[in-house]
Parts: sequence; C-alpha cells; structure tokens
Amino acid sequence: MPTPLDALSFEPLTPLLFLERAARVFPGNIAVVDGETRRTYRDLRDRTRRFSGTLRELGVRPGDRVAVLSSNTPLLLEAHYGVPGCGGVLVALNYRLHAAELAQIVEHSGASVVLYDSELAALADDMLHLIPAPPFACSEGELEARLPEAQPLPIPAVDERSLLSLNYTSGTTGAPKGVMYHHRGAYLQALAMVHHARMDARSVFLWTLPMFHCNGWCFTWAVTAAGGTHVCLRKVEATEIWRLIEKESVTHLNAAPTVLTMIATALDADATSIAGRIHVCTGGAPPSPTLIETLGALGMDVTHLYGLTETFGPIMICEPQPEWAGADPPRVARLLARQGVGNLIAVAPRVVDDAGADVPADGTTLGEIALRGNDVMLGYYRAPELTAAAARDGLFRTGDLAVMHSDGYIEIRDRAKDIIISGGENIASIEVEQVLMSHPAVLEAAVVASPDERWGEVPVAFVTLRDGMQARPADLILHVKTRLAKFKAPSRIVFGPLPKTSTGKILKYALRQSLRADDTAPFP
Amino acid sequence: MPTPLDALSFEPLTPLLFLERAARVFPGNIAVVDGETRRTYRDLRDRTRRFSGTLRELGVRPGDRVAVLSSNTPLLLEAHYGVPGCGGVLVALNYRLHAAELAQIVEHSGASVVLYDSELAALADDMLHLIPAPPFACSEGELEARLPEAQPLPIPAVDERSLLSLNYTSGTTGAPKGVMYHHRGAYLQALAMVHHARMDARSVFLWTLPMFHCNGWCFTWAVTAAGGTHVCLRKVEATEIWRLIEKESVTHLNAAPTVLTMIATALDADATSIAGRIHVCTGGAPPSPTLIETLGALGMDVTHLYGLTETFGPIMICEPQPEWAGADPPRVARLLARQGVGNLIAVAPRVVDDAGADVPADGTTLGEIALRGNDVMLGYYRAPELTAAAARDGLFRTGDLAVMHSDGYIEIRDRAKDIIISGGENIASIEVEQVLMSHPAVLEAAVVASPDERWGEVPVAFVTLRDGMQARPADLILHVKTRLAKFKAPSRIVFGPLPKTSTGKILKYALRQSLRADDTAPFP
Repeated sequence: MPTPLDALSFEPLTPLLFLERAARVFPGNIAVVDGETRRTYRDLRDRTRRFSGTLRELGVRPGDRVAVLSSNTPLLLEAHYGVPGCGGVLVALNYRLHAAELAQIVEHSGASVVLYDSELAALADDMLHLIPAPPFACSEGELEARLPEAQPLPIPAVDERSLLSLNYTSGTTGAPKGVMYHHRGAYLQALAMVHHARMDARSVFLWTLPMFHCNGWCFTWAVTAAGGTHVCLRKVEATEIWRLIEKESVTHLNAAPTVLTMIATALDADATSIAGRIHVCTGGAPPSPTLIETLGALGMDVTHLYGLTETFGPIMICEPQPEWAGADPPRVARLLARQGVGNLIAVAPRVVDDAGADVPADGTTLGEIALRGNDVMLGYYRAPELTAAAARDGLFRTGDLAVMHSDGYIEIRDRAKDIIISGGENIASIEVEQVLMSHPAVLEAAVVASPDERWGEVPVAFVTLRDGMQARPADLILHVKTRLAKFKAPSRIVFGPLPKTSTGKILKYALRQSLRADDTAPFP
Repeated sequence: MPTPLDALSFEPLTPLLFLERAARVFPGNIAVVDGETRRTYRDLRDRTRRFSGTLRELGVRPGDRVAVLSSNTPLLLEAHYGVPGCGGVLVALNYRLHAAELAQIVEHSGASVVLYDSELAALADDMLHLIPAPPFACSEGELEARLPEAQPLPIPAVDERSLLSLNYTSGTTGAPKGVMYHHRGAYLQALAMVHHARMDARSVFLWTLPMFHCNGWCFTWAVTAAGGTHVCLRKVEATEIWRLIEKESVTHLNAAPTVLTMIATALDADATSIAGRIHVCTGGAPPSPTLIETLGALGMDVTHLYGLTETFGPIMICEPQPEWAGADPPRVARLLARQGVGNLIAVAPRVVDDAGADVPADGTTLGEIALRGNDVMLGYYRAPELTAAAARDGLFRTGDLAVMHSDGYIEIRDRAKDIIISGGENIASIEVEQVLMSHPAVLEAAVVASPDERWGEVPVAFVTLRDGMQARPADLILHVKTRLAKFKAPSRIVFGPLPKTSTGKILKYALRQSLRADDTAPFP
C-alpha cells in the first residue's frame, strides 16, 4: 500500500506519460499526418482517451487483450495509447500473415476485441471465420463513429512491470510466440531511441517501418516522447515515400536494409527532396557499404541497430566512434556492419558459451548473444516452458552466434536457431518444411536461409521427392503460398538427396554452405 | 527474492550504469580534463572502482555517508561514482559555507569519512576542529596515494529507490536540511538532461556550475551518460573560462544568470573563441532579455530551467515553442523568462491553492508550485516531520508562488518561504536575522530579498537599534560575515522602525515592496 511519501518520489514508468507530456507541452504541434488529415497532440490525446473510453464500453477490462489488424494508419498508432489507456494489452498483428496464421495468434492471445482497418476487411473476415468463438470486431470507421459520444478515460494507474503489449514472433517450431512487453521497458527503450535517433519536437518521422514490428521498435512512443510528428504510410512504395519526404520535410525514418535499398534505388530517389539530412535507423540485417554510401549521397545518415522482438527491438547500436571518421571507407563499412554495443539504457550485451561464460573478446571465438535488462521481455505469453527454455538462468539466449571484438563490439557470424530473416520478417524453417512435406510428392524437405541482395535472406528449400513421384518447383512454391504468408514461400527449390549425420539429422549447415559457395560464382 | 525470470527483464536504475556503459562503449573518449591531465573513460571507471575499494578499506559500508569538500575537481567528480560504487551515500559540501556551518552539516549527515581537496585544507581543518567526534579525513593526495594498491570494487547491486546522495540546503529556519536523492531519480533526471541539453559523445561540458549544487544538477552523471567530456574548473573566473572554451572546444556549460553575466561581460569575452555554438542551461533566476541577447551574439544558446534541491535540480524547462521563432524579441524574452513545463521525465508540475486544488490557467491567479514524481526527493534526512510538512499529501510544496498561463507554462511571481536566492545560493532570512540580533546594539531585524542586477537577489536587512545604542552598517555586516558564509551578509542595512501587523508580525511584504519602489528610481 503506497503512502503519500511514496507518491512524492515515485511515478510508474509507462509510455502513456509521453503523450500526456506532449499534449501539455506541445499541444499545437502536429502529432499525426495521414494524407490530408493533420492532428495536433491535443487532438491525439483527446482522441486516444475517447478510444480508451470506447474500449471500456465494449467491455475491455484491465489486462484484456485487444488485437489490431492494420497497416501504419492512425488507427494502429492511436491503439498504442488507446488500448493501454484503458488498461488493455495491445496485440498489433502482422497483416502480411495468412488468415489462418492470424487466427492462431488472435486465439492464442485470447483477445476480446479485434480492431481492423477497412482496407484489410477481407483478411479480417477470413481470419474471424477461422476462430470458433471470434472476438468482437470493429473497423476503424465503426470506432470513429463511436468516439464523439465516448467517455474519455484518464490514463490509468499502472504497475510499471505489468503487461503493455504482446508482439507475436515465429518461433523455431513455427508456432507463434507472444512476446510480453512491459510498461517500464517500453518507456526506457523509447527514451533510448529518442537519444540515438536525436529526435526533438521538430522531428518528422515517416512510418516506413511496420508498427506491428516490436511496436514499431518503440518509435510509436519515442516520436511522441520527443513531441515530433508521425507521418503515416499505408504502403511501402518508393514514389509515395519520396513524395512524403519532400512534402512533409521528413527528418527521420526507419526500415530494414531491403526497404532502404528499394528507397535508394527508386527512380524517384532525389537528394533535392531532402531539406536537411534524414536520420535513418536500420536493423534486421547489416546495411551494406554500398547502401550506406548510396543513402549518404541522397542525404540520409544511417545508424545500424540490432535487436529482436524479445528485446523491444534495438537493444544494441553500432555506435560510431569519433576515430572512425578518419578511417578508410571500406574499413568503416566493415565496422558499421557489426551489431555493436548496448544502447543507452541496455545492460551490456554478452557473447557466451554453452555454460554461460563470456567468450574472449578476440573477434574469433564463437558464442551466443545473451541479453537481459530493462528492455528485455517478461517472457512468452502463456508459455512458461518456452520462457524458461529461452532464459533458464535469467539471460535471454538470442540464437545469434557471434564474436566479441577487442573494442567491445559484437558481430553476428551465424544463427543457432532455425530462423530465416527475410525483409525484416522472421520465418521459421520448420513451418515451411512442414507445409512442403504435406505435399503428396514430397518425402523430405529442409529449408535454409540464402543470402539475398534485396531481402537480406530468402528461404531456399532442399527437397527429396518420393520414389516415382513428380513435382515442379512452381507446384511446391504455390503449395506453400496458399497455406502460409507469401513471404514464407521458398524462392528456390533444389531437388536431391539431403546430407545427414550418422544419426540421420539433416546437416543444414552443409546446405547453407552450398548456397554460399554459389554466391562466389561470378555474375554474368 | 528475485527469480532468474525477474533478472531477465529488470535492472535497477542507477547512474552508476552510465559510467559502466561509457567505459565499454567510449573507452578512449576523454572523460575528464583537469588542467594538463586528461583521463579516458576507461581510466575513469578504473579509478572510481579503486576509489570505491579504498573507501571500503577505510571501513565505509553500504549506507554510510561520505562527505566531500572540494571545488569542481576530479576528486568531487569521481566521488559521484566512487562513493555510491561502494554503497556509500555522497554528501557534496558547499565550500562557500563557514566552517561552523559545514561542521553542522557533516555532523547531521553522520559522515564517517570526509574527503577534501588540499586547496581547502584550512577550511577542512577548521570544520573538523568544530566536530566533537570528527570523521576520518583524507585529502585528494592521500586518496591518490592509496589508489594503486586498492582493490577495485565491481558496481554493487542497488535498490533503485535507495539513498544515493544527500544535498544540504538552507531551510527557512536556517538549519540545514539533507535532501535525499535516490538512484532511480538521478538516473532518469540525467537522461532528461542529456535530452534537453542535446548532449552526445562529442559534447564537451565545462564545469562552471558547482558540483555540490544538486550534484551539479545531475550533469555529473548526464555528461557521462552521453559519453562526453567533463572539463573541471576550480574557480569561476572569466579569463580561465574563456581560455578553456577555446582550448577545449567547449560545447556545453551551465550556470546561474549571475555567472553568465560575468562570463558575457568579461573583457575576455570573444565570439571567435567558440567553434560551433555553446548550449547553456541556466536556472536559479530567470535570464534577462539582455543576457540572452548578449550570450546569443557570443555564440551561446540559452535554455531556462527551474528546479530546487528537492527536485534533483531542473524538474522544469522553459521549452521553446516552434512559433516563438517568429515572435518579436521582447515578447520572446518574456516567454523565455517563465519557469515553463515539466522536463522529459517529470510528472506535470502543478500550481495549487492551499487546499491542493489546481488554480485556473489564467495567468493571474496565484498559487504554489507543487511537484511530485521520479525526480523528487525521498524526503529530508533524519527529519520525518520536515518531510511530512513539505509533502503532507504526497505533493512537494516548493514555496514558490506562481501563476499557470493558458499555454500550460508556469511563471513564478513571489516566494512563500523566507528564502533569498543569491547567485544560485539559498539564504535563509531567519538565519541572518538571528545573527544580526545577536549584536548587542540590535533590537529587531528583518532580512528580505532585494532584486540585484548581478546576483539575482541580495539580502537587505531592516534593523531597529536598541534605545541609546549605536551601530554603523559596516559593523553589522562584519558581525554577520565573521559568523556565516560571506554571501549571506546583507548588502545594505536600513535603520528604522519595522512595519508590523496588529498582532506584531513583521510585514516583510511591505519591506520587499519598499525595495522594489527604490528600483523604479531613475539611475544617475
């Protein structure tokens, strides 16, 4: 029971405070731009309080989950305040998933309400039909109609260590895991992002990064903390991005290298569209020297971040050192391609061996990146055994195999887990393998990551057909595409026997090596 | 009992983490400059760990107080890490105080060790002689001699709500009050300062603000969080300040308006000494339009902050609004002279009436600034009744009478408490009055603040002499100077009867008014 004296010096940390401050301190600043719609921070606070009131009227109680299916619209941005504002837990859905995958996530989360953007009404409908007892569904238009009459809710008292959001990610088994974010972590991570991206009340942030990815790496809250402007973007499309960069005088954007390459190489790319410089944060894969150089020439300065869904996004930053300024460009590019060091609020990341001991900082000894601290998840939702397995000793094992350099920077060398990261999206190998093996002609399948210029990695399937059976690559790819999100389909199918250990375990390492060997072949 | 799972997502917030990070991420950056001495962050961490080890060897246990008597030297800066690094509580002493005042503070704190800079050896000696059971005393030279052999201590596990430091301030009674800072508050306040001062690893901070003031408003930790450089300064002297600005390429400094005026009007003031722009934070009194303009012409951009010892320094900031850029200069100066809004991590400051209700935001209704949140003190050390009186309902009453403007900015209009703020230092009227009345010729004395171009305010004494007794102003001023810190002595003595209420209470308001009336007299 807190006493008045506790209240004197203690306020629970929650990102909801950032909107309260922005609405008080910068009430007239433009908070949200969406096409021709422009809303101030005063408006955003008022709307999100009514949003919370509407959810309360729909029966949402503290701790209840509210799922949102939307691209980067005001609906999803406002949900980052409106849902926790009534004590609810936000579940931002990846709209690139298949209806069946979404249904599985919504069911697992136990969401009582699903909000969706009308542009995704068909997907929402498909998803809802796959859920035996579907949650109450409400489009952004229906929500909008309720706002004027809704009772605005003041922000609730929260326990800072309590659940703020669930971010679903593919596990190695393919079953989605609900990563539990807490208020304190999101608050501190947002402050770190404000610092590293150098944001302030004049910043204009373009939403090229999906808000459903780690709650937009917590920039849904960080931009608000800075009092800057959120510019919504429904579709990641170069012409529109360059139009908005010029029209809205964008100062910041975040995206996976894949998307940055698309932006940088678009016909519309035009350095004269950029008034000052644009601060770009990227992650999911290291930005290539060519990409950094091309963006630089366009007026964009790149910061390389590293993180996972389990770590509120970027727990690490490749912090540029003053002395790198003078180094030769290829060396700087190599240095910048590393995953780096802990961010401003992170506990120092470690690279550990199986026993949990730090590997030597020699740049060669392989270990696993292991993390803990305020920007690490509470655990996996309704999966204590998965949580315990991922963090048996209080250290989250990332599955990323890395070395520790002598300057304290971490660099990833391989991945321990069977995950492919394509265009910033996680793909579980096993999930694709299982779908492939559900095809009548397939005897065995192994799916591994293949390096890809555009997507960072793409899935490639090695398949052995049943005796006497026939299947074309296109048949198998279509088989996957009709059952999973399209980005999970293999880009290539390689037929033949699979290399195995004496105990019959498929040697995925050898398969990955064979793909890398291909890469060394000269291009025509 | 925390489980491994708690450790996964929870790390206690303490500013000690900032030095750990700086030493890992920016090991080669210059952390401290002191004359010709330059130490890297690697060195600073290693030294402060040995500092902690030395204190442990001297018997300092967790919770023990360690007092430091020093100007802005490496000793005092390192103590901000070395003392809490062994679990100790830092008591940074105001070396401008009289030996008797210092003795009172050290006794009240129960410090078991006093560290002092050799330049202040005489004062330390005088102070120690006034303490019946004096603490163990150690000069910076003696400490330095012990460091090489000391056992470095790793940073301790701390409760983030536990005591980090005591900052003594004059109460209205003149008895010093030990304001209790907690680790969490210092951590968050430092992050807010990094943001508002826009600091990063290239920042060079000149220590014109005393580190004993609210732990240097938490910049002792904030500069380190940013990975910037601390430039020590033993004496606030214009020639030396301008020399360092040029030599060290200073980017940041903080000071009361008094000191800024001295810097800006010095013969050495030279805009060509400043490479880029210097970010200046000021507080203690509003910066005048002339000062802002003069500093601007020299290359210094001023941010106006407001806070008290009880609030880790600047809990408020006069955040400039985008639209002010276009307003006419006198209006902007008036807007910037206001105390402002809550800082990035502060709970929104309030202006309340006696019953604790918010006054209307009309710019005219007077109320008292009332504060709470993560950057508010735990209370007054060993004075629960004072704490309860200052925060009876969980809101700290500042004693500053203010209005709330319609744009949400707070502006101070008067002071409820009998405190004079001169050159950033608090002076309790009653303390000076008591000393005056100890003079045989004095019957009654009332001390009030008089506006002063240089110091913001200075104490002026209204004195009634005993019948038939004589005293010259100079006699009385000398009488005070030999008993209290020199800055507490009245700048003027006005003889005559004191205006009183019917119940005999002195009308200080009338005395203050009479001084303001003087101000309107044209200058010769």
